Amino acid sequence: MLRLHSHPFSTFARRIRIALIEKNIPCEQVTIDLASRQHRKPEYLALNPYGRVPMLDDDGFLLYESSAILLYLEDEHPEPALVPAGAKGRAEVDMHLRLCDAQMAAHAGTIIFPKRFMPEAKWPLPAIAHASAEISKHLAILDRQLEGVDFLVHDRFTLADIAYIPFLQFLPIMVDAASVPANVARWSAALLARPSSLETVPAQ
Amino acid sequence: MLRLHSHPFSTFARRIRIALIEKNIPCEQVTIDLASRQHRKPEYLALNPYGRVPMLDDDGFLLYESSAILLYLEDEHPEPALVPAGAKGRAEVDMHLRLCDAQMAAHAGTIIFPKRFMPEAKWPLPAIAHASAEISKHLAILDRQLEGVDFLVHDRFTLADIAYIPFLQFLPIMVDAASVPANVARWSAALLARPSSLETVPAQ
Repeated sequence: MLRLHSHPFSTFARRIRIALIEKNIPCEQVTIDLASRQHRKPEYLALNPYGRVPMLDDDGFLLYESSAILLYLEDEHPEPALVPAGAKGRAEVDMHLRLCDAQMAAHAGTIIFPKRFMPEAKWPLPAIAHASAEISKHLAILDRQLEGVDFLVHDRFTLADIAYIPFLQFLPIMVDAASVPANVARWSAALLARPSSLETVPAQ
Repeated sequence: MLRLHSHPFSTFARRIRIALIEKNIPCEQVTIDLASRQHRKPEYLALNPYGRVPMLDDDGFLLYESSAILLYLEDEHPEPALVPAGAKGRAEVDMHLRLCDAQMAAHAGTIIFPKRFMPEAKWPLPAIAHASAEISKHLAILDRQLEGVDFLVHDRFTLADIAYIPFLQFLPIMVDAASVPANVARWSAALLARPSSLETVPAQ
């Protein structure tokens, strides 16, 4: 039995939930109570020393790091395919997963957590401005890659697109709406309208 | 023909060079002149919009992000295997590659560049202290995982170990030598003594 340790507010866990829906994989959701710091208690740290969600438990095989989980699910449940066949297609998806983490997710965390959960007076404004500028630079690169296509890799829906969905959800609070380049806006709107996205939208 | 765009000082490129030696894969090395900012010129940015090394060119198929390159080389040149067979072994290697990047490499960059290439008066000491503390926390986790074993995944030499080598090289300038935990010290010494490591030690 598959179990996903996660939390409804976790952007990284949402990637997995979207992939599970797209692939129609049954999986029990175990909510880790972040508010009571359950992820920092010895019982959870014994399973995942980094104290983070998501963590997958596949009959006792424990895996963390959301992108590694996405590719593991793909290997274990190859249909419908969310990675193109062949080493090159997989490598391109993998490259985009890593770029999403380094160029988007790392900076998104600096903005999303304070803006969603902290009073405005406590927002770290210089850090937010820096993160927003870095995200804008990244969006400009994505925009060129999305010219004339609907998806990032081989113009088909893959894990590379899924990895971005939880962060695209918060684009309006991360960058100035008018500055989102046209291809990114089109791609983002289409991804956020997928049933798997709508089903996993985090509570306000 | 394989070509690796890289630079002798690049920690991320060194991972690839080590894997190429371990797998005995012929590959032309193309040095990108970082000092003259060749990686920021339009010709290079047209190939890699992030302007970084390493970048692999496999007969025109361009791939960047060093961990994605490591796994691509593994898929294309499976022998000798640097990833255990099966989805679980691969997923564990992948998880460790991502943890190495997020918990070690990201912080190592904050320390290695200034300490190697900037006058001491310009070192960003608070950032260095923070990065050093984060690396020490990560080493404590690695130390528990290395208890009683020689390697990170399934107790055999894999890409997960290779990914760490270029950063372990600089452990003496990143954390207090006396604070390196015993299992990490043993693992690091053995990895740095491999012929593929010795052949790729960066110039002082």
